Amino acid sequence: MRNLTLLTDLYEMTMMDGYLRCGSEQNIGVFDIFYRQSKGLHRAVACGLEQAIDWVKNIHFSKEDIDYLKGLNIFSDEFISRLENFKFTGDIYAVPEGTIVFPYEPILTVKAPMFEAQFLETALLNIINHQTLIATKARTIVDSAYGASISEFGLRRAQGPDAGIYGTRATYVGGCGSTSNVLAGEMFDIPVKGTIAHSWVMSFPDEITAFREYARQNPDGCLLLVDTYDTLKQGVPNAIKVFDELKANGHKPVGIRIDSGDLAYLSKEARKMLDKAGHEDAKIFASGDIDEEILESLHIQGAKIDIYGIGTRMITSYDNPSLGGVYKLAAIEENGKLVPKMKISNTTAKITNPGLKKTIRIYDENGMARADLICLKDEVFDTTKPLTIYDPDDRWKETTFTNYSIKELMVDVIKDGKVVYDFPTLQEIGKYANKCINEFYPEYRRLMYPHKYKVDLSDKLYNLKQELLTKATKR
Amino acid sequence: MRNLTLLTDLYEMTMMDGYLRCGSEQNIGVFDIFYRQSKGLHRAVACGLEQAIDWVKNIHFSKEDIDYLKGLNIFSDEFISRLENFKFTGDIYAVPEGTIVFPYEPILTVKAPMFEAQFLETALLNIINHQTLIATKARTIVDSAYGASISEFGLRRAQGPDAGIYGTRATYVGGCGSTSNVLAGEMFDIPVKGTIAHSWVMSFPDEITAFREYARQNPDGCLLLVDTYDTLKQGVPNAIKVFDELKANGHKPVGIRIDSGDLAYLSKEARKMLDKAGHEDAKIFASGDIDEEILESLHIQGAKIDIYGIGTRMITSYDNPSLGGVYKLAAIEENGKLVPKMKISNTTAKITNPGLKKTIRIYDENGMARADLICLKDEVFDTTKPLTIYDPDDRWKETTFTNYSIKELMVDVIKDGKVVYDFPTLQEIGKYANKCINEFYPEYRRLMYPHKYKVDLSDKLYNLKQELLTKATKR
Repeated sequence: MRNLTLLTDLYEMTMMDGYLRCGSEQNIGVFDIFYRQSKGLHRAVACGLEQAIDWVKNIHFSKEDIDYLKGLNIFSDEFISRLENFKFTGDIYAVPEGTIVFPYEPILTVKAPMFEAQFLETALLNIINHQTLIATKARTIVDSAYGASISEFGLRRAQGPDAGIYGTRATYVGGCGSTSNVLAGEMFDIPVKGTIAHSWVMSFPDEITAFREYARQNPDGCLLLVDTYDTLKQGVPNAIKVFDELKANGHKPVGIRIDSGDLAYLSKEARKMLDKAGHEDAKIFASGDIDEEILESLHIQGAKIDIYGIGTRMITSYDNPSLGGVYKLAAIEENGKLVPKMKISNTTAKITNPGLKKTIRIYDENGMARADLICLKDEVFDTTKPLTIYDPDDRWKETTFTNYSIKELMVDVIKDGKVVYDFPTLQEIGKYANKCINEFYPEYRRLMYPHKYKVDLSDKLYNLKQELLTKATKR
Repeated sequence: MRNLTLLTDLYEMTMMDGYLRCGSEQNIGVFDIFYRQSKGLHRAVACGLEQAIDWVKNIHFSKEDIDYLKGLNIFSDEFISRLENFKFTGDIYAVPEGTIVFPYEPILTVKAPMFEAQFLETALLNIINHQTLIATKARTIVDSAYGASISEFGLRRAQGPDAGIYGTRATYVGGCGSTSNVLAGEMFDIPVKGTIAHSWVMSFPDEITAFREYARQNPDGCLLLVDTYDTLKQGVPNAIKVFDELKANGHKPVGIRIDSGDLAYLSKEARKMLDKAGHEDAKIFASGDIDEEILESLHIQGAKIDIYGIGTRMITSYDNPSLGGVYKLAAIEENGKLVPKMKISNTTAKITNPGLKKTIRIYDENGMARADLICLKDEVFDTTKPLTIYDPDDRWKETTFTNYSIKELMVDVIKDGKVVYDFPTLQEIGKYANKCINEFYPEYRRLMYPHKYKVDLSDKLYNLKQELLTKATKR
């Protein structure tokens, strides 16, 4: 296993040394990871917790790391010796992977001595930002495919090996059923898919010979790539010839794959040609720079595509390649008491929510999610009584729930340095993620101008925030 | 070290098994990696060769890999046993890292038995696509900073650990001078930078206390983050107070960092305030969602910024997060002879260049690059005679060079399975990269509508391409 202990920004370590030098390093700090609204991210699929916690568990400064840090000549000796015995002793709360989260809701919360909490920032953000981004993009794409299956095809365009490996993991959490990525298949038990590329077809004197050879080798798994030379004039007719030959010998062809050109037109024409030749069961696979908007357009045009292979646009979250999640101080111990803290900003959107918090999701009588409430961790709600919530920006907008149930979104992951969470398998996460998204009405899930899901602050949290704002403005 | 052997798409392996089953697996194939024009990529900075070759050298199917592949029940026994003894025995040519390349120019060429050459595709593309993309983006950003230094700050927003680590490596090749990423600093000996975050300031009762404590600890390295509460009303005045105190004690303050707000306005006002207080030497650092367009705008507005920390926009290549490089068959052995091959497409841009090739760069009498010529590998040019080149799309456009010199861009990296290339250090690559970009006149380097750099085909390559096109169309 790689040693990724130093996967951090230098300022985390200069601050840790700083806390040490002024004797505040053992003061408890509370930090939240959350994201702010941006393109395509009106909701997100939380992902990456398992790898984030793996990183925390494996923090270990090797001799090389220590020598390197000493050589920078910026750290105190005391700091270096503390690193040699570094161990995370705090608490981590988080939403399980696959949970739908909204802007400002804590995805993960660290409560630990400042020395430790500060060190976790960069690596946790790197891992959770990445996987949450890709799981979210995958969910958007899967939701736009109108029931067609999505296979992840992006390894060659991913931003390095990890982006391919853990990106593929995230697409599974986002609802994809399979991948071309063999290593991700091995590591996470995701079904792997793949047949032939253009190089196979080009390595034979002609297309029909390439098809026949593939069919001979894979009589019951024959999927043919038909766009190397000319899809409709050559590729599909050659595929039909070979399918006829397979059928005559008692085999059932799988189908064809189209990787370029006008997918709507080509798939409809190919469908007609296949049907006319009696290959109604042959499936049509499509690939090539597809995203959620193209999927909706293909659907509207009546394209005849059964399975999509989606690469670049999903594995890089092409139109918005960063979640922009942040790790913000929410409280800090002063004289033995946890004091709520808040980052003030002229940009209202950048003001943070103070205190140790949790999120509850409110469900209607159909078990469907209707609103979330960010509140203080020790708040208790009596669901036998009506619950009124207020929009945090427009306080005159209120909603009252009478027949409702609630669920807390965050769970305990690490308590006093010990992992207390039973990590689910990726397959279990996939199922849970599907359950979570299906708790939302279609109006919240559509691609174009989705209905705005309510995320309000509890009265207690709202009042605390106002109080701190007033205090800060007066100062 | 991680075993990344299975970092591949499944179809590479189904094709390898297919070549084996039809007895063509030992036929030599030639594959080129190149990219096509897209946003911001009129030229690219080649990067990632060292990691790509590391991957090739370390191919090793572990027992777990073999068991996993057997368990898929799609491969022949012969194929599995060949994997157990897999060794790359072919040749690899490539442009050195830091070389400026243009669309269609081979960045790397593999000449090897099809069984081996096919296996290399996905991992080579993953690594080279990623690092070349980020080095290219970094170069664009550095070129737009008008001499201000650029420090890489993006780890928390990179697409996973590798994207942070190797992305940072690539930004150094693209001209950045330092990074916040400690692990990349350790691995590649890149200078690391970092001081304090908002959490430092917020962890003290007030800003001036936080500043004073940092100054006490770092009297000769005092860089203060001034935007936690109010940059001009509070942050800069507090910084000036602390700088005055430092100066009174014989220390020289480093400067201030602004991480939010209107950087042009704030930096100009802060500069005036610092100068007025006698801190003309204090530098102004800026960070926060900056890219090349913002850099040009800040320059035009006369912003007073000495050093930029650039994160998300550079480490993800935000506006175009994929290079889209491809790995295309250019020739294959048939009956013991290497036969040029070409992918035909209705989209002219997608037609490939056939044969085993090289690129020569043509320099004028000032030693400045004026045109590139993609040609066949065995072509020889006599530079004592004039050289006329033709635009491959508009053949009537010709240019004749008389007083010129040429350089071949590609070097031998692996011959018969053995590494023959002496890999430079990252610092040497950085110097070479700076030299390469400076061989181009400013007209080719500007951000808006740069002058189109000529990349032509040699007559021999052009004629070969036409011949194959005619043959394919007739068939």
